[in-house]
Amino acid sequence: MNVDKANQRAIKRMMATRPVLKTVAVAGDVVPGLDAKRIVHAGPPIEWSRMSGPLRGAVIGALIYEGLADSREAAIHLIEQGEIAFSPCHHHHAVGPMAGVTSASMQVYVVEDEEGRGKAFSTLNEGYGKVLRYGAFAPEVLDKLRWMNEEMAPLLAVALEECGGIDLRTLLAEALHMGDEGHNRNKAGSLLFTKHLAPAIQKTAEDRELAAAVIEFLGDNALSVLNPVMAACKVMADAGHGVKGSTVVSTMARNGTDFGIRVSGLDDQWFTAPAPVPDGLYFPSFSSADANPDIGDSTITETVGIGAFAMAAAPAIVSFVGGEPEEARNATLEMYEITVGEHEHFTIPSLGFRGTPVGIDLRSVVELGVTPRVNTGIAHREPGIGQVGAGLVRPPMSLFEEALEAFAERYLSPGEAGR
Amino acid sequence: MNVDKANQRAIKRMMATRPVLKTVAVAGDVVPGLDAKRIVHAGPPIEWSRMSGPLRGAVIGALIYEGLADSREAAIHLIEQGEIAFSPCHHHHAVGPMAGVTSASMQVYVVEDEEGRGKAFSTLNEGYGKVLRYGAFAPEVLDKLRWMNEEMAPLLAVALEECGGIDLRTLLAEALHMGDEGHNRNKAGSLLFTKHLAPAIQKTAEDRELAAAVIEFLGDNALSVLNPVMAACKVMADAGHGVKGSTVVSTMARNGTDFGIRVSGLDDQWFTAPAPVPDGLYFPSFSSADANPDIGDSTITETVGIGAFAMAAAPAIVSFVGGEPEEARNATLEMYEITVGEHEHFTIPSLGFRGTPVGIDLRSVVELGVTPRVNTGIAHREPGIGQVGAGLVRPPMSLFEEALEAFAERYLSPGEAGR
Repeated sequence: MNVDKANQRAIKRMMATRPVLKTVAVAGDVVPGLDAKRIVHAGPPIEWSRMSGPLRGAVIGALIYEGLADSREAAIHLIEQGEIAFSPCHHHHAVGPMAGVTSASMQVYVVEDEEGRGKAFSTLNEGYGKVLRYGAFAPEVLDKLRWMNEEMAPLLAVALEECGGIDLRTLLAEALHMGDEGHNRNKAGSLLFTKHLAPAIQKTAEDRELAAAVIEFLGDNALSVLNPVMAACKVMADAGHGVKGSTVVSTMARNGTDFGIRVSGLDDQWFTAPAPVPDGLYFPSFSSADANPDIGDSTITETVGIGAFAMAAAPAIVSFVGGEPEEARNATLEMYEITVGEHEHFTIPSLGFRGTPVGIDLRSVVELGVTPRVNTGIAHREPGIGQVGAGLVRPPMSLFEEALEAFAERYLSPGEAGR
Repeated sequence: MNVDKANQRAIKRMMATRPVLKTVAVAGDVVPGLDAKRIVHAGPPIEWSRMSGPLRGAVIGALIYEGLADSREAAIHLIEQGEIAFSPCHHHHAVGPMAGVTSASMQVYVVEDEEGRGKAFSTLNEGYGKVLRYGAFAPEVLDKLRWMNEEMAPLLAVALEECGGIDLRTLLAEALHMGDEGHNRNKAGSLLFTKHLAPAIQKTAEDRELAAAVIEFLGDNALSVLNPVMAACKVMADAGHGVKGSTVVSTMARNGTDFGIRVSGLDDQWFTAPAPVPDGLYFPSFSSADANPDIGDSTITETVGIGAFAMAAAPAIVSFVGGEPEEARNATLEMYEITVGEHEHFTIPSLGFRGTPVGIDLRSVVELGVTPRVNTGIAHREPGIGQVGAGLVRPPMSLFEEALEAFAERYLSPGEAGR
């Protein structure tokens, strides 16, 4: 068995994928297996009793949003009665930033590979402040969610049809030349996104005031493209999954309690370990004592070679996540050591247009003792509060060691174990 | 006399200026001294007989556009009869990219300092391809100009009123963190510009199809913000002009024949020398044999510390102007040697958020033998053709030597001449 060849096949598949944002639709209508009594969430599988504060907060918010409960207490009661099923977004072709909570009546972006090799879903980005994805569920949080899902989403669906969809691989490639890394910094990408949509909204929207409000909301939210980008990355990562004999990591995701990974050649097995607390910059009046352990599916960006892996393209990000611009450059350089290739479409101007490091190789992580880098937001550890900062984190090494052992057991005869 | 102090005063004034794009208006109504029989152009003063091909082409186009002539021949005849007066944009508080030709009925952006220290004007950017500013004047060039001036401009004026103007210093600062240098690369700035205008257009435009076309035109033209940015730079540069005893260069401009500079402490005296041909990348089927000598007022960007001076912020630009990303970084580092300060508002993430080099000091240029760097477009040397490439250029050293001599004569007693 040739692991190197299998790994090349995995990243070639990832890179050949061309995800296009096609439309916006009701989750319950399009996300496989998402019925009215199910909540999907970020990260690996987890039961209610082990969920962290922000994930609980978002689940409570979703149940109130769905009309299944009218208070925090009622929501918890419903869950404790076993009325609500939980599963990872990743089990439903979906991804969600932070808590990642998605319920049946929420609207989702629908991203499809142009060649028909897969599709993925993600909710609409709520912007900053008190938002469901960070575990807030106050009435104004749910009001905003209602506005987004009931007013904005149908208008976006029509606009996307008008403009024929948005090629997200091209958008990301361009954004990386404009100081984005595609995970925590999506300023340029969100402007490109708005640029594509604005004329189409202008042409098709019935309600002028609403149309103006939507264009303003998309343009002023420097994360508005994050969710479709994550769905695009999910399509790419899934294309690289399931290659026999490949040690390429095809999922990294956190639920706020556990950090989980999956490996291309190891089917749908999760390897999990406690999620660490990110190291970062805190908003005024907050500190690391308020921080929840790492949470969110947004590590799908690093999984396909952007995010912290493309940080050299985004030196300005250090004002948000901490550190010096030189460290942003070094982050990318370090990631070349644990990846199996350089991206054909995503390049970094300041590194002489070198392709971003793509395809985390389990073997290199363990051999070199270098874990993947991740840029991330930081949620308050209590439900109902929200974002408290942003920073950097790495998954625990034990994940990769455990996965490598499983790989050896599965593929190698005793004599061949190891590299 | 303390030259250093005077120079600090000059750049402090430049940096304290806060140019805001206020509206769009008919040039003849707002640009001082621009009457129906006058054409203003880029660069230092020049008579018709010495004008280069692209400037002649643009002048011919403007006369046809104004209805003063109905053909190339008729336009030339009118000029040779002495019916048309010419003067530099710079003499009328205006600036224009490339040929910079502005005539009375064209619409101009009106940029004003928030503190009332001055205003400046520039035409609307035409986008790419065959355009007047590169000396093209075919019917489709003039049709587009008509659409821009008659359809788009009034709509922009209303939208700018609706959104309360656009703070261009803030926009530029943000764009420099998104891979722009503000002269040849204005991708991010143009998206930010479109983002500000789109909701306001959506709210105010009567004609939906036109509104959509305008938003699309602004968003797809990566130079749409260049002209307002140039007017903003003109406001800044003018604020730094007229400081007694200052050796700071307050104008750099080219008319396609001559490169001209003016100096803060030397009133309105121009120093000129033959403009060099830029060194750059050519579009398919063109070469340096087709290139006109350097042309345009867009060097106003370098004059106030952006453009080639901020090139380290824009490594991706080398795919357009030639060279390696490392050279983009070195360009900025070199410019620190000939400038008197670092910009308080314009910073470069990859250099640890260091301020851009600002305020070219005549003395340093001559002493070190280092002339300012300029990023530029390249026009075909014949009238009527258009852009053939983009590249890099430096003004001739003789300009700075001559200006320094004039400075010495004016300010220094014989014993003090030199530094």
